[in-house]
Amino acid sequence: MATVKRAPAGAAVLRGDITVAIRNAVMQELADVGYGRLSIEAVARRAGVGKTAIYRRWSNKLEMVLEIVSDVAGRSVPLPDTGSFAGDLQLLMLIVSKALQHRIASQIIPDLMAEASRNPQIAETLQKALRTHQQAVGDKLIGQAIARGELPEGTDPEVAVDLILGPLYWRLAVARTPLGDDYLEKLITAVAGALRASS
Amino acid sequence: MATVKRAPAGAAVLRGDITVAIRNAVMQELADVGYGRLSIEAVARRAGVGKTAIYRRWSNKLEMVLEIVSDVAGRSVPLPDTGSFAGDLQLLMLIVSKALQHRIASQIIPDLMAEASRNPQIAETLQKALRTHQQAVGDKLIGQAIARGELPEGTDPEVAVDLILGPLYWRLAVARTPLGDDYLEKLITAVAGALRASS
Repeated sequence: MATVKRAPAGAAVLRGDITVAIRNAVMQELADVGYGRLSIEAVARRAGVGKTAIYRRWSNKLEMVLEIVSDVAGRSVPLPDTGSFAGDLQLLMLIVSKALQHRIASQIIPDLMAEASRNPQIAETLQKALRTHQQAVGDKLIGQAIARGELPEGTDPEVAVDLILGPLYWRLAVARTPLGDDYLEKLITAVAGALRASS
Repeated sequence: MATVKRAPAGAAVLRGDITVAIRNAVMQELADVGYGRLSIEAVARRAGVGKTAIYRRWSNKLEMVLEIVSDVAGRSVPLPDTGSFAGDLQLLMLIVSKALQHRIASQIIPDLMAEASRNPQIAETLQKALRTHQQAVGDKLIGQAIARGELPEGTDPEVAVDLILGPLYWRLAVARTPLGDDYLEKLITAVAGALRASS
C-alpha cells in the first residue's frame, strides 16, 4: 500500500478555519458595503487575519469574490422530490421564498447582479451558477412531472423555471413587497395552472 | 388681467437645457459606473457644465440621483388598451421585454436595486415608483379583464402583476438569457392560463 505524505492535521484544520473565516467575512462585507466598496483590508479585519493570508489564497479582490461566490452558489440546493408535481412545486416555492428573504441573499444577489452588468467575468460566473441551478430544476421537476403525466409533453422547461422563480424574485428581491397571508398559495395555484396551459 | 413677470425666454430654455444635459449625464454615469462610484465631477464633465450648476439644483449626490430617477420612472408608461385581455397582455409583455433589454435600463435598475438594499431612501423612492406602476397595471388591465368577464372575479391583481412582470425580469435582468424564438409567445400563453386558473 502506498503511503501518502500529509501535512500535520492541525495545520490543515487551521488553514481550513482561516479559509472559512475569510469566506464568511467576504459574504458579510458584500452584504454590508457591496462589491464596489469591498476592500481586502476590511475583509482581513473582519476575519481576524492578516492581509497576507488573503493574498496567499487569491491574487486580487475579483478573483477572491468570484471563487467564494461560485463556491457558495454551487453547493447544490437539494431539489424537492415529494412524488407529485403539486408537492414538488409547493416545496420548491417555499424554499425559494425563504432563501430570498434571507438578509445575506437579499443584499448580495442584487449587488452582484449590478456588478455583472459592468463586469463580464462576474456576469459569466453568476450566469453559470444560475443556469446550472435552473437546468437542474427544469430537468428534474419538469421532466419527472411530464413522465408522470402531470404536465403536457410539450411543456417548455425554460418557461416553466422562469414562471416558478420569476414572480418570487420580482416580489421579494425587486419590489421588496412582503408576501401576504395567502399570496404563496395563490401563486402556486396560478403557476400550476400556467404550466398545464403552457403547451 | 393680471400680468405675470417672467424671466426672458432664452434664460429659461438655457436653464432647462442644462437640467436635461445633467439628467442625461446622470443616467449615463449610473449605467457606466453605478451609484457607488458616481461622482458629481464626472457628471459635470459629461454634461459639459460646472459643478456649481449641479450644486445650484441639488445639495448632494443622493438627492440628485433620487430626483432624476423618480422623474424618469414616474413618466407614466402608457398602458395598453386593445379591447381584449389577450391583446393587452401580449402588448404589455412586449413593451416590458423591450424595456428590459434596453442598455440603460438593464444596467441602472440592478444597480439601484443593489443600493436600495443598503440605503432606505433609495429603497423607498424605487418602491414607490414600482408600486405606482404595478398598481396601475393591476387596476387597469386586470380590472378591465374582470369587468369584461375574461378573468374570474376573484383574480388577485398582485399575483397577476407578479406573474406578468416576474418571469421577464428574471430572465432578462437576472439570468440575462436571451429570449428564444417562440419564448415570448409560450410565456404569454402560460401567463394567460395561470390567470384563468388563479382563483
